[in-house]
Amino acid sequence: MYVVKSPLSDADLTTVSEALQGALVDLIDLSLVAKQVHWNVVGPRFRSVHLQLDEVVDIARTHSDTVAERASALGVSPDGRAATVAGASGITVAPQGWVKDTDAVGVLVAALGAVITRMRERVAATGEADPVSQDVFIGITGDLEKHHWMFQAESG
Amino acid sequence: MYVVKSPLSDADLTTVSEALQGALVDLIDLSLVAKQVHWNVVGPRFRSVHLQLDEVVDIARTHSDTVAERASALGVSPDGRAATVAGASGITVAPQGWVKDTDAVGVLVAALGAVITRMRERVAATGEADPVSQDVFIGITGDLEKHHWMFQAESG
Amino acid sequence: MYVVKSPLSDADLTTVSEALQGALVDLIDLSLVAKQVHWNVVGPRFRSVHLQLDEVVDIARTHSDTVAERASALGVSPDGRAATVAGASGITVAPQGWVKDTDAVGVLVAALGAVITRMRERVAATGEADPVSQDVFIGITGDLEKHHWMFQAESG
Amino acid sequence: MYVVKSPLSDADLTTVSEALQGALVDLIDLSLVAKQVHWNVVGPRFRSVHLQLDEVVDIARTHSDTVAERASALGVSPDGRAATVAGASGITVAPQGWVKDTDAVGVLVAALGAVITRMRERVAATGEADPVSQDVFIGITGDLEKHHWMFQAESG
Amino acid sequence: MYVVKSPLSDADLTTVSEALQGALVDLIDLSLVAKQVHWNVVGPRFRSVHLQLDEVVDIARTHSDTVAERASALGVSPDGRAATVAGASGITVAPQGWVKDTDAVGVLVAALGAVITRMRERVAATGEADPVSQDVFIGITGDLEKHHWMFQAESG
Amino acid sequence: MYVVKSPLSDADLTTVSEALQGALVDLIDLSLVAKQVHWNVVGPRFRSVHLQLDEVVDIARTHSDTVAERASALGVSPDGRAATVAGASGITVAPQGWVKDTDAVGVLVAALGAVITRMRERVAATGEADPVSQDVFIGITGDLEKHHWMFQAESG
Amino acid sequence: MYVVKSPLSDADLTTVSEALQGALVDLIDLSLVAKQVHWNVVGPRFRSVHLQLDEVVDIARTHSDTVAERASALGVSPDGRAATVAGASGITVAPQGWVKDTDAVGVLVAALGAVITRMRERVAATGEADPVSQDVFIGITGDLEKHHWMFQAESG
Amino acid sequence: MYVVKSPLSDADLTTVSEALQGALVDLIDLSLVAKQVHWNVVGPRFRSVHLQLDEVVDIARTHSDTVAERASALGVSPDGRAATVAGASGITVAPQGWVKDTDAVGVLVAALGAVITRMRERVAATGEADPVSQDVFIGITGDLEKHHWMFQAESG
Amino acid sequence: MYVVKSPLSDADLTTVSEALQGALVDLIDLSLVAKQVHWNVVGPRFRSVHLQLDEVVDIARTHSDTVAERASALGVSPDGRAATVAGASGITVAPQGWVKDTDAVGVLVAALGAVITRMRERVAATGEADPVSQDVFIGITGDLEKHHWMFQAESG
Amino acid sequence: MYVVKSPLSDADLTTVSEALQGALVDLIDLSLVAKQVHWNVVGPRFRSVHLQLDEVVDIARTHSDTVAERASALGVSPDGRAATVAGASGITVAPQGWVKDTDAVGVLVAALGAVITRMRERVAATGEADPVSQDVFIGITGDLEKHHWMFQAESG
Amino acid sequence: MYVVKSPLSDADLTTVSEALQGALVDLIDLSLVAKQVHWNVVGPRFRSVHLQLDEVVDIARTHSDTVAERASALGVSPDGRAATVAGASGITVAPQGWVKDTDAVGVLVAALGAVITRMRERVAATGEADPVSQDVFIGITGDLEKHHWMFQAESG
Amino acid sequence: MYVVKSPLSDADLTTVSEALQGALVDLIDLSLVAKQVHWNVVGPRFRSVHLQLDEVVDIARTHSDTVAERASALGVSPDGRAATVAGASGITVAPQGWVKDTDAVGVLVAALGAVITRMRERVAATGEADPVSQDVFIGITGDLEKHHWMFQAESG
Repeated sequence: MYVVKSPLSDADLTTVSEALQGALVDLIDLSLVAKQVHWNVVGPRFRSVHLQLDEVVDIARTHSDTVAERASALGVSPDGRAATVAGASGITVAPQGWVKDTDAVGVLVAALGAVITRMRERVAATGEADPVSQDVFIGITGDLEKHHWMFQAESG
Repeated sequence: MYVVKSPLSDADLTTVSEALQGALVDLIDLSLVAKQVHWNVVGPRFRSVHLQLDEVVDIARTHSDTVAERASALGVSPDGRAATVAGASGITVAPQGWVKDTDAVGVLVAALGAVITRMRERVAATGEADPVSQDVFIGITGDLEKHHWMFQAESG
Repeated sequence: MYVVKSPLSDADLTTVSEALQGALVDLIDLSLVAKQVHWNVVGPRFRSVHLQLDEVVDIARTHSDTVAERASALGVSPDGRAATVAGASGITVAPQGWVKDTDAVGVLVAALGAVITRMRERVAATGEADPVSQDVFIGITGDLEKHHWMFQAESG
Repeated sequence: MYVVKSPLSDADLTTVSEALQGALVDLIDLSLVAKQVHWNVVGPRFRSVHLQLDEVVDIARTHSDTVAERASALGVSPDGRAATVAGASGITVAPQGWVKDTDAVGVLVAALGAVITRMRERVAATGEADPVSQDVFIGITGDLEKHHWMFQAESG
Repeated sequence: MYVVKSPLSDADLTTVSEALQGALVDLIDLSLVAKQVHWNVVGPRFRSVHLQLDEVVDIARTHSDTVAERASALGVSPDGRAATVAGASGITVAPQGWVKDTDAVGVLVAALGAVITRMRERVAATGEADPVSQDVFIGITGDLEKHHWMFQAESG
Repeated sequence: MYVVKSPLSDADLTTVSEALQGALVDLIDLSLVAKQVHWNVVGPRFRSVHLQLDEVVDIARTHSDTVAERASALGVSPDGRAATVAGASGITVAPQGWVKDTDAVGVLVAALGAVITRMRERVAATGEADPVSQDVFIGITGDLEKHHWMFQAESG
Repeated sequence: MYVVKSPLSDADLTTVSEALQGALVDLIDLSLVAKQVHWNVVGPRFRSVHLQLDEVVDIARTHSDTVAERASALGVSPDGRAATVAGASGITVAPQGWVKDTDAVGVLVAALGAVITRMRERVAATGEADPVSQDVFIGITGDLEKHHWMFQAESG
Repeated sequence: MYVVKSPLSDADLTTVSEALQGALVDLIDLSLVAKQVHWNVVGPRFRSVHLQLDEVVDIARTHSDTVAERASALGVSPDGRAATVAGASGITVAPQGWVKDTDAVGVLVAALGAVITRMRERVAATGEADPVSQDVFIGITGDLEKHHWMFQAESG
Repeated sequence: MYVVKSPLSDADLTTVSEALQGALVDLIDLSLVAKQVHWNVVGPRFRSVHLQLDEVVDIARTHSDTVAERASALGVSPDGRAATVAGASGITVAPQGWVKDTDAVGVLVAALGAVITRMRERVAATGEADPVSQDVFIGITGDLEKHHWMFQAESG
Repeated sequence: MYVVKSPLSDADLTTVSEALQGALVDLIDLSLVAKQVHWNVVGPRFRSVHLQLDEVVDIARTHSDTVAERASALGVSPDGRAATVAGASGITVAPQGWVKDTDAVGVLVAALGAVITRMRERVAATGEADPVSQDVFIGITGDLEKHHWMFQAESG
Repeated sequence: MYVVKSPLSDADLTTVSEALQGALVDLIDLSLVAKQVHWNVVGPRFRSVHLQLDEVVDIARTHSDTVAERASALGVSPDGRAATVAGASGITVAPQGWVKDTDAVGVLVAALGAVITRMRERVAATGEADPVSQDVFIGITGDLEKHHWMFQAESG
Repeated sequence: MYVVKSPLSDADLTTVSEALQGALVDLIDLSLVAKQVHWNVVGPRFRSVHLQLDEVVDIARTHSDTVAERASALGVSPDGRAATVAGASGITVAPQGWVKDTDAVGVLVAALGAVITRMRERVAATGEADPVSQDVFIGITGDLEKHHWMFQAESG
């Protein structure tokens, strides 16, 4: 059986694994929700929101890959399957059917806000256990907060 | 409320909508399963399978976008949310935990095979109703069958 | 004198030639109308509509070239001169002077809708006569319907 | 209603507007005529003339965009619709049907010659009224005369 | 032993396999004949024909790869060896020694004409058996007929 | 000490130097004001205005470099320091704090308008003294008037 | 009125805001001073210093954009206007007129040194308040110290 | 009739012509055999061998073009037709049907080995007759031996 | 003599210098060992390991440059000469002669493991002394652990 | 015989032709002199001057092509042969043998100065006769004066 | 004074220097003659010959740079000034005024032929004295003979 | 055990192997020494020398890879480990600590000179044994002598 000796102690590994698995689920769901709104948005700001959402999809996909491979690098199997994502995501706002552009912006503000709150907790939790993983979470948080600002500014 | 007058009759639209929604769910799940194995594969062929899976992810993502936007173009709201994907996907083989490379190849042969069977049914079902959508399904089927072959050949 | 022996029967060639010549005129006019609005649009959504219209211009120009060269390949001289376009185009909505952004979106919904209706007729008419030309019309229809959706969604 | 305060006096604006609108029509028609010959040319020099004409199409399209946006920048609505082009173009040589390669070269020599003559008049007319627009006409004239030479040289 | 379960019935598979194998041989031979003339053409139009032939080589090579991999995807071993090509190609005009440019154009008109005739038969034969393979043949036919036109136009 | 013998007479050099130094200050300030609004704009059109402003920053930076190096080429030391810019700029509208998108458009219309007026004076002043510098000012004026139009059209 | 709920406490936000605003002013001024010397340097090492300064301009512009957008992301309006920069910059060495190359190197050593000292204080001040902003300051400090070394080495 | 005065003596020309014609046939056949295995390989190493073979195809095609054009440059008509290749190639191992990956590697080791032996003889034969052609053969030999090594190492 | 005033205290500088010099030696040796195996690996997985090793070489070279320039930026002369590397490297597994592919993977697991252990100690040692250098070590550790995982997974 | 009807009067054509022919000779010689110094410069500033000279070669070659094609466009045969350049160039400073770097800079200052003086005369002479040619001379003068400044600054 | 100790004996150096200087003059003149014809060619094949000549210019310029820097690398000052080229070139066919396309091809056949004859003598002369320089001459000869063939083939 | 049948006789293989192994060690050491000086150079010419050294590193790395793979292609295991390099390199001038720019140039002149002398011996030794390897050495020698010249010219 495949076992990797982790550079971390067991306690640290537990902390970091939970953070990475949680981030993975959040980021995959963010990519799915952003694509969902990308396809369903309607209203005068359709094109602007449609394009902006693909930028969110891009960073969510890129960071989810980084986070999953970071788990593998620590010897922990990542789980990014649809049912896992559907059951454990921190995002609760994925809308059904067509979405007015103003509502679409609100959905993203809420979704990004939920993920950011949890990501900041991961930054705080992992600093001592594994500064390498913490650095990954810090970078992700910065990117998410930038996009959070831009959707908030559109509601300004 | 947002209503688009479809170029298709109601009956044709129903047929085509179901085909597009089904394809969307299958393709998103294919992208998630392929990523899952991409992260969890182990064994001597790790690197080769790891890289090959990202090519599957790429085509699954590209085609899922095409299919969802085709639904929107016909005035039908596509649904690509995690729970929808988890509930309706035609793929039943997403593995948990580390996957031996030979098993990984088998997972992909099975997953691609399941999606291809349903995609060929969509080709057959939509030819009269909407040749534009049918042409999309034909192109997707060709790409999936190419990758199906390559994973089968690795088991040869 | 230059005569090309067509791979099609005379009857089929007549059918396909008319379809190709009609598509050529529609697509050139679509490129001219989209450019006209690109230059004359005003209003808060100016920049978004201005950029979106150049994407329509690009696909209209690309497809008009494909359609004209397809006619030549079948031994039929294509006619894309200004007077021919002015006289035979299926688009009836080219506006004079400045155009409010909401009106601009409406002009494109109408122009694309008119061209799509005729293009779907060409798909239906040419399937037996020449599947190669039909495949060209199917591809064009898919692209036009995608842009049609995006302008409709902006009115949603 | 949309009114832009022009940086030019009314008299100067009239002069410059006419020059820009005239140039717009000539350049759009040049792009259409060059494409027409691009598709219809036959003879041993087919490939060379076919490729050369696309270079003319490219500069005609690029310059027509510059000229139309220059009109908009001065607060004057440009008109590049098919009927306007068909009615006001300075080019009188758009051929019908297949064109022998030697004739094709002659068509372009004539078409470019006609546009150049009018463009030089615009250079002369606008120097005092608006040196910015004049500089645009000078650049266009240089490009057109280069292509004029190359088609003339082919008849040499 | 390596056996792939084909998505087609045995009868359909026989039809499609023959079409794919025939197309493979024709396209490889087209690439060899076009290269042969590319190296051996002489006369005032040398450079134009020399360059044009490499475009034919490119599409012949690309399509032969697509066709062979399509056969493999259906579980049928493709055969593109020199002796097979020499024995089964539909092209009968490969010239020996230097070729005058006018003759070179004639060789390509004949070679492309022969391949097109057989490719249209494959389009007709495979539509019901396998629309995916048919779509490949339709695309190839379109490309070949475009180049056929351009060489015919040079003889115009 | 470093002295460059200018190709211009002393009187001409004085005229041209003042024009170049004035343009340098205006263009640097334009880049700073555009960035300021780029960061501070809020409202539904946030993303569109945010992106549009970076295009203004790009041309302002490029042209300020050209103008400063043109001064150096004439043997005149350019001054683009913050205090010089703050004291001598022709722009009087740099806003403090968050800016509503409609106001942001107005700020740019005013800022570009102020710079254009002074740039046209420089075109007029330098034609006899140094046609090379005048040509630089003409090019800058054309670019600025294009962007001026686009912001005005958004208020249309 | 536009108010963003910051993820930071009020005290932390004050600390981080001051650091970001201070960094913004320093970096904009660094870009202006580096450009000033880029245009005014003279001496045998002109070309080397001239090119090296544009690299400093590039990183100063890139980092100033990051820092300003980080402030916006935290709900704090950044101020990068010329007068603010002129009044609050940590750089005190912007030279007037031509600058000998050896002096130019000294100016940059001093300017970079001043900014680095303040940037290291920001790294120390923000670690607890906001590790995301701290990570930005760490990255900037690393880049500045690299360029500081290279100018010092030229005086070695 | 087309005759080129060669820079070589008749005897030298005979030597060099035979070497070039032989190399042309070997390299075209190498490209066909490598493609044949590229399509027919099966087994766990499928993907690796499949990709590696396309690199062999690329160099075989590139070098065959160089060799044929070198013959033309010396006034000797090259012959690269299918029947010529089938009759004169130095490769005797082109397999029929599916090929196990270990066998595929063996086929390439044998095919490259056969071509290398003959290519080294051409290097030896042409040094005095034409150092320009010899230099071409030396370069080809180096490339072939590199790929020969890599397939041998896979059997190691 | 060349002395740079470091931004660090003497004690901190000693700590950080040792960490940087140690990392430099480890990374240069990693690049040499990875190249050594890149050239000497044999076995069925030759191609996969051969390519994977060049990715290790790339990151080892890039990071060694960063680390050495970071030392210079702190005023400490880096030493990356062959004898220094041979004497002080943390890698003890550089193999002589041909290496079986399974052994090659083991060599890299061991070499990367040794460097990672020391790099994590550097992360721990430098956090207070110099967060800028620590951030460099964190980034390097993340990259090394990713490649460590991939070689371990190949042994799984 | 080949005669092109010029758009200019005979007197204007004489004026413009002389200017274009003179500019052609000067620019070709500038490219040859700059290359000569590029190869022969020695001294501590070798690399900087060596690279800088290739930039001069690039603009000299580009502008010489523009000027010659402008002459052809006006129906005047340009003469850029070596003997013509050797006999009529305005540059009198091409050095023989190795050149010290300080001398190399001086050679370029002198060569560029000589060409600039004559180019400014051409700007003055052609404004009325042909504003298109004058615009070409203005652009060339601007580029030459920029490089003249940079070599002068190196002597500062 | 600058003296480089050559790796060659005095006698060998004399031989190689003469060969390099002769090649430099021939190649510069070839680039000038090819440009001359590029600008002056007329006739139906104008465009083809015009483009083909720029390819000759490119290789002549590239090789002249290589040859001159090779002389410098051996410690011998290269001389590529206009008067030297005019006096010592092996090309005697530079035409004055417009050139018919058939004559243009003949000029290039003659010019390339003259340079090739001398270049082959250099290959023969330098093999023992300096194989590095010989290898340069072999590469140049191959390129020149390829272009020589293509112009000859156009006369075929 | 892995044994490759070499295309060379045993005696020739011994000669060529020694030459390749010697070249490998020299080139790796050259890359390390050039990097060492790249990091440690100080003085007014820092930037120029710093950049120039990275070009030496690039060619040394590229050629060392070619040489090592050439050895493998002949069935000889190359040895490029740090201790081997430290023990067998032909370079004896790797400096410790900071290096003045004038000294840095001297170090490179000496290092390149030492490697060139040995590389010319390898050219002489391998011509009969293996012209393929000799051609590699000739190409390397040409590149090294070019850089040798450029560093010498900087001391001129």
